[in-house]
Amino acid sequence: MTSRRKRLSVNEYVDGVLESNTIVLSRTITLVESNLTEDQILAEQVLAKILPHTGSSKRIGITGVPGVGKSTFIEAMGLHLAEMGKKLAVLAVDPSSQKSGGSILGDKTRMEQLSHHRNAYIRPSATGASLGGVANKTRETMLLCEAAGYETIFIETVGVGQSEVAVKGMVDFFLLLMLAGAGDELQGIKKGIMEMADAIAITKADQENIAASKKAKAEYQNALHLFPPSDTGWSPKVLTCSAVTQQGLDEIWQMIEQYFDHMTSGLDQLRRHQNVSWMHETIGYLLKNNFYHKPEVAKLIPEMEKQVGFGKITPQAAARELIRL
Amino acid sequence: MTSRRKRLSVNEYVDGVLESNTIVLSRTITLVESNLTEDQILAEQVLAKILPHTGSSKRIGITGVPGVGKSTFIEAMGLHLAEMGKKLAVLAVDPSSQKSGGSILGDKTRMEQLSHHRNAYIRPSATGASLGGVANKTRETMLLCEAAGYETIFIETVGVGQSEVAVKGMVDFFLLLMLAGAGDELQGIKKGIMEMADAIAITKADQENIAASKKAKAEYQNALHLFPPSDTGWSPKVLTCSAVTQQGLDEIWQMIEQYFDHMTSGLDQLRRHQNVSWMHETIGYLLKNNFYHKPEVAKLIPEMEKQVGFGKITPQAAARELIRL
Repeated sequence: MTSRRKRLSVNEYVDGVLESNTIVLSRTITLVESNLTEDQILAEQVLAKILPHTGSSKRIGITGVPGVGKSTFIEAMGLHLAEMGKKLAVLAVDPSSQKSGGSILGDKTRMEQLSHHRNAYIRPSATGASLGGVANKTRETMLLCEAAGYETIFIETVGVGQSEVAVKGMVDFFLLLMLAGAGDELQGIKKGIMEMADAIAITKADQENIAASKKAKAEYQNALHLFPPSDTGWSPKVLTCSAVTQQGLDEIWQMIEQYFDHMTSGLDQLRRHQNVSWMHETIGYLLKNNFYHKPEVAKLIPEMEKQVGFGKITPQAAARELIRL
Repeated sequence: MTSRRKRLSVNEYVDGVLESNTIVLSRTITLVESNLTEDQILAEQVLAKILPHTGSSKRIGITGVPGVGKSTFIEAMGLHLAEMGKKLAVLAVDPSSQKSGGSILGDKTRMEQLSHHRNAYIRPSATGASLGGVANKTRETMLLCEAAGYETIFIETVGVGQSEVAVKGMVDFFLLLMLAGAGDELQGIKKGIMEMADAIAITKADQENIAASKKAKAEYQNALHLFPPSDTGWSPKVLTCSAVTQQGLDEIWQMIEQYFDHMTSGLDQLRRHQNVSWMHETIGYLLKNNFYHKPEVAKLIPEMEKQVGFGKITPQAAARELIRL
């Protein structure tokens, strides 16, 4: 897209973003997402200039398995905030998404009201072959949205894989959506995700579901209590909500604000730590990316995986052999 | 050590290991742990030859915070198995350990009885600057012990950091030791470790602790129930035990055998998957290791971390700048 359309100058991108011009914001995100070398150089210059204007938003990760009602929750909670006059950006990390396919945020109709609200900005997931690449781009998009004055950022992810770890590493607060009635619905959640949550919201707590949701809330509260507290001293909360009746939405938001009150100086520390980790992860990602894209490596990988898998060669020996190439 | 002592030939190492000669086994492990290039080349040849003789042991990771009674548990459980005629090797992944310092397995006196049992082989943690390096060496040591006929391998780790993830990636079964009375004792356990456990054993369940241990057992059982099941279909168990009264040790072992019965063909699949992941992780580790040891990179890293931490430059830009070097 950027390759066919005339590029703006660095200052035009920067000024447009800082003026909260959503057309320029969208074009800047497209620039950041582009894999063309010229676009990347330009994007890096733009990001360097907007960086001093970032950092003032609440960065909130939201996850849950498909079917838990993530889009519905984000639309309801988003409208609640937008109606309070807060500017909200909704992003997604979904390595599987294709702009042509109909994955989470790609299908905007599922957040139709929110997407038309003047205080809301919705952007589908960047596309790309690797999680590292997609996550990097989402992180940069988040910075652009902050510079554009969005004071709340929701970053959605699908709850079934590694993207949660990446999102946890870029947000201040991580919210896990769950359904009452556990059992089968839980099968999709990966181990470890629950322990990353700063809060669990039990969705669809309305009508005949109210009793089950209350019970689930008590159970999760007891369970989380047994689990180790986070380094920040915040103990995860469990709440219920319904996008239909609006019940619980405001309580969840109050709880999130409580978290930010609790964090104060801890937030700076968390973000500094995240930034440093992110740098090292990006280094690892770039090194691996360069390595795996070498034709001689790419050619040998499937055979090596087979041999290693069947124990014909140790993983270390295989790795060393590939590195020697 | 290996540099000062005459090296054996590849076949001498291999034959010694396969004959379960513990003196040769120890020397082979020292060879594998060595960072000298000549030793590494030799070690790789030895490992390639012993590889067909590996894979028949039960690989069991054991973790818990300091104070939970890990050494005492391993000694008691180890003696229980050794007395049954089983050959047991006890290894450790502890990146902080120094052979001179008195860390977990370095201090052999803490497992005095077990260390003198003819069916047991105890080896302190490899030393090294990075977890990746230490874990790689422990994994190779595990293979050597398997080839030497040890049918059960315990791999101990400290429960407070990243080593658990590495150990989870090399074992079949992961046991977490916990104390009844939760609260403060739990502070040390890192988030995410509990969800990795295939079983929790509540230690020191004796005398005035019995009631509290039973209560803790019930609580953890309820809590684990709410958490997602593992891909293997095994649901984590909670048991109590006492190294003093021996109560529960046999039940824990029975449960572990039950797990292996449950896994049957799943075990091969798990290990294949682990091997392939391990190869890719080793590639990442080697790439990073080579990169960070470049003098021009090493020189710039502290400054970059500072700038990234304080938001003067984005993590991505910093990473790209370092890579360009």
